[in-house]
Amino acid sequence: MWLKDCHVHIVGLGLMGASLALALRGKVARRSGSDIDTAVVHEAIADGTIDASGEREQADIVVLAAPADANLRLLAELALKPGALVIDLGGSKTAICNLMDTLPEHITAVGGHPMCGIAENGYQNAFATLYAGARFILCATVRTTDTARGLAEQLVAACGAMPLWMDRARHDQTAGAISHLPHLVSFALMRLAMGLSEQNGDVFEMAAGGFDGATRLARTNEAMISGMFLTNEAQLRALVDDLRRHLDDLTALLDDPPALRAELERIVAARRAYTEQYGERMIT
Amino acid sequence: MWLKDCHVHIVGLGLMGASLALALRGKVARRSGSDIDTAVVHEAIADGTIDASGEREQADIVVLAAPADANLRLLAELALKPGALVIDLGGSKTAICNLMDTLPEHITAVGGHPMCGIAENGYQNAFATLYAGARFILCATVRTTDTARGLAEQLVAACGAMPLWMDRARHDQTAGAISHLPHLVSFALMRLAMGLSEQNGDVFEMAAGGFDGATRLARTNEAMISGMFLTNEAQLRALVDDLRRHLDDLTALLDDPPALRAELERIVAARRAYTEQYGERMIT
Repeated sequence: MWLKDCHVHIVGLGLMGASLALALRGKVARRSGSDIDTAVVHEAIADGTIDASGEREQADIVVLAAPADANLRLLAELALKPGALVIDLGGSKTAICNLMDTLPEHITAVGGHPMCGIAENGYQNAFATLYAGARFILCATVRTTDTARGLAEQLVAACGAMPLWMDRARHDQTAGAISHLPHLVSFALMRLAMGLSEQNGDVFEMAAGGFDGATRLARTNEAMISGMFLTNEAQLRALVDDLRRHLDDLTALLDDPPALRAELERIVAARRAYTEQYGERMIT
Repeated sequence: MWLKDCHVHIVGLGLMGASLALALRGKVARRSGSDIDTAVVHEAIADGTIDASGEREQADIVVLAAPADANLRLLAELALKPGALVIDLGGSKTAICNLMDTLPEHITAVGGHPMCGIAENGYQNAFATLYAGARFILCATVRTTDTARGLAEQLVAACGAMPLWMDRARHDQTAGAISHLPHLVSFALMRLAMGLSEQNGDVFEMAAGGFDGATRLARTNEAMISGMFLTNEAQLRALVDDLRRHLDDLTALLDDPPALRAELERIVAARRAYTEQYGERMIT
């Protein structure tokens, strides 16, 4: 089965869903879509981001591009045509893949997580090359047939991303460490500054680029973030505990300046090597 | 006394010191400098970043632009001409201002902290407009005369920055919250990812823009960071405790999704309002 012959339906026309629709223009037979905001659906049809609204039950591929917790609810009540493939774009994979395992046998399903995004999300910020060059994690489920696997890889390739198959639990630990925890920390740093600014009006006046970068993730749409946190809660709690240990270790080194310097140097070297290897990426 | 008639000597020709030297070109009578790396001093003279090496004892203004802990050692053994002004550029102010209070009466002194910087520090990354538009915190000491105050403000204006006089303790709490703590957290997040990557080779492969932004501060020169941490240790420890409480609060909200959403929304709104008010700043 070839992607170019498929009708793709996208549920949720925010940054991720609408950018995918734009990336698939001319590469699939039909693109339909839906969104809880009907004004967005009308706009998406008017500007050609999608070809039609509704039509979910006629689609060969249904992409769930709502917040991760909403995707779980959507999947539970999804009516699909026999043989259809459903794939989600949520930031956590265990919860949704466990649910995909239980789908009727005539449905195929793959968990997905494209590693791209920008802080300014929503339909109005979508663009066709958002996925270009990004890693696109794919997780096999009980409902992942060879056909489903092939279609998912064609979809990833069509939007310019690179597929990386991964076990769902490993994904959630890794994504927790490199995305969910940094988001939570960004919110915590902003919350601390907000508290301090109630007694001290200079806080935001004094803040500069370092603070801006460290709290940039706290600009993201709340529904995406809470969906991500709530569907990967156990991993996130475990990672917060890990982070406490790392903060303990680093704070303890304040008593031993040469050891502090050596440890910071080790981390700086690793962070610079990481940039050397992967280059600068878009800031989500 | 006018800045244009002054001989300014800069101790430490890294990003901050050399950028200040470049910003002062044509605005002061003479710019001399020194650095522990003699190759940098030769390069700075050769390319006109400074006019001469040495000459510290002839300078009207001496700027301490080494890491914050090194500035403390430098100040303790500084030989200055009577009436000279010494100002530092370090990220913490209580320790250095307490030491400035004890200087001989014929020396004047002001604590300084320009709120600008970029991750790629060092002489080779210096540029004349680094300070342009930045807040430049100034802290009065027992040795801050009216003349010293006026000269410090002229220096700030000459490099395009805006002076903000502030109490040293208040500075250290605020800078701790918006700079030192975000640095420590950035190191802790990178350290956690490094640990995880020892068992899981996908960690850095999967990391994208969100991780990059959240750990960008861990690319900074180790000596600047350890100097900043070690000279503001008490505030930093207190702020780490505060951060733990904010992480506790946010983690506890995972049990109450509507309350979690409301709290994240409150923080997102504040973070977006902050960007609205101050615009995007350079990422240090």
